[in-house]
Amino acid sequence: MKKGIMQVPAGVSNRHVHLSQEDLEKLFGAGYELTKLKDLSQQGEFAARETVSVIGPKGIIEGVRILGPVRKETQVEISRTDGFRLGIDAPVRQSGHLEGTPGCLLVGPKGVAVLEKGVIVAAIHIHMSPSDAQKANLKDGDKVTVFIGGQRPVTFHEVLVRVHPRFRLELHLDTDEANAAWLNNGDKVWMVKDQQSLSMVG
Amino acid sequence: MKKGIMQVPAGVSNRHVHLSQEDLEKLFGAGYELTKLKDLSQQGEFAARETVSVIGPKGIIEGVRILGPVRKETQVEISRTDGFRLGIDAPVRQSGHLEGTPGCLLVGPKGVAVLEKGVIVAAIHIHMSPSDAQKANLKDGDKVTVFIGGQRPVTFHEVLVRVHPRFRLELHLDTDEANAAWLNNGDKVWMVKDQQSLSMVG
Repeated sequence: MKKGIMQVPAGVSNRHVHLSQEDLEKLFGAGYELTKLKDLSQQGEFAARETVSVIGPKGIIEGVRILGPVRKETQVEISRTDGFRLGIDAPVRQSGHLEGTPGCLLVGPKGVAVLEKGVIVAAIHIHMSPSDAQKANLKDGDKVTVFIGGQRPVTFHEVLVRVHPRFRLELHLDTDEANAAWLNNGDKVWMVKDQQSLSMVG
Repeated sequence: MKKGIMQVPAGVSNRHVHLSQEDLEKLFGAGYELTKLKDLSQQGEFAARETVSVIGPKGIIEGVRILGPVRKETQVEISRTDGFRLGIDAPVRQSGHLEGTPGCLLVGPKGVAVLEKGVIVAAIHIHMSPSDAQKANLKDGDKVTVFIGGQRPVTFHEVLVRVHPRFRLELHLDTDEANAAWLNNGDKVWMVKDQQSLSMVG
């Protein structure tokens, strides 16, 4: 990795829902199983054919994609833009860190699920395999800087590195971040290990 | 300005429309005049009580605020997120640079306006008075770097400086950019004159 710089493909996450089996059955009926629409880049993850409506105090967003497989806890990932539309003040969180987050109402074809918590804006992060991490001299939990060139050049600071054998090298960011940087799914970005750019305003 | 750094308040621009008198009359009736809801921070500009619907091939956004006074040409400013919702591939442009931009349909209480062009995503920029520009050793057309701290720290590069006696010091950015940086209207950001942060990925 020359001068601590590495190219990483971007994966833009539109709003989506991970469901527990319990909530899946509330929404789609007893014993229901998700059907695969397509595999996602991260091994074992898939976009399901099924969608739900997400409802907050100020609005509704229909047709929100469910990602499989089912998880231990239901988690709704939205952008801050979606949060304003729904009237839900969702915080920036890492996946799975749901304590103290707001809830919402999910509506499916067979019923509703009233969530007491679980609505988050996912924190920007980079997935990588142990071998990519070794090449980049990084470990799980490290933070890096990401630079995106083009017509809206942007630097994202303090981007979390997640290392796992099942992970494929990819920057995950939401639609607000992608649109602010005029970025499309699959575009390459620069990951910079040292955070020189922060030092200038320190 | 210590070390070429200056604090600037942010003004977050939600989607809005500037109308020509001709289009205003198509939408609201012959001889119509806009009524002021409130003054904006830039001298002479105001948010009107009136709103319109913006329609594209894939969607409609209702209640889009009109800003006054009327202009020579109608201009619709949306975010890239709005563009996906409407199905309009609006480019990043400076205000008034409308050549080759896509159009849309506007619907008001008395009629419609079919725009052949005028839909843009406004380029991020900083307004400042000649005296602020002198303090910062900047001139109209210069580009600067803007750093936003907080829970989603972001640097915006190549931010255009606009200098005019009527301008008040303010960073103007759209909702995608503001949400990517978790920024609220009136928050202070750092403007950095030299673009050291770009040199690291040059």
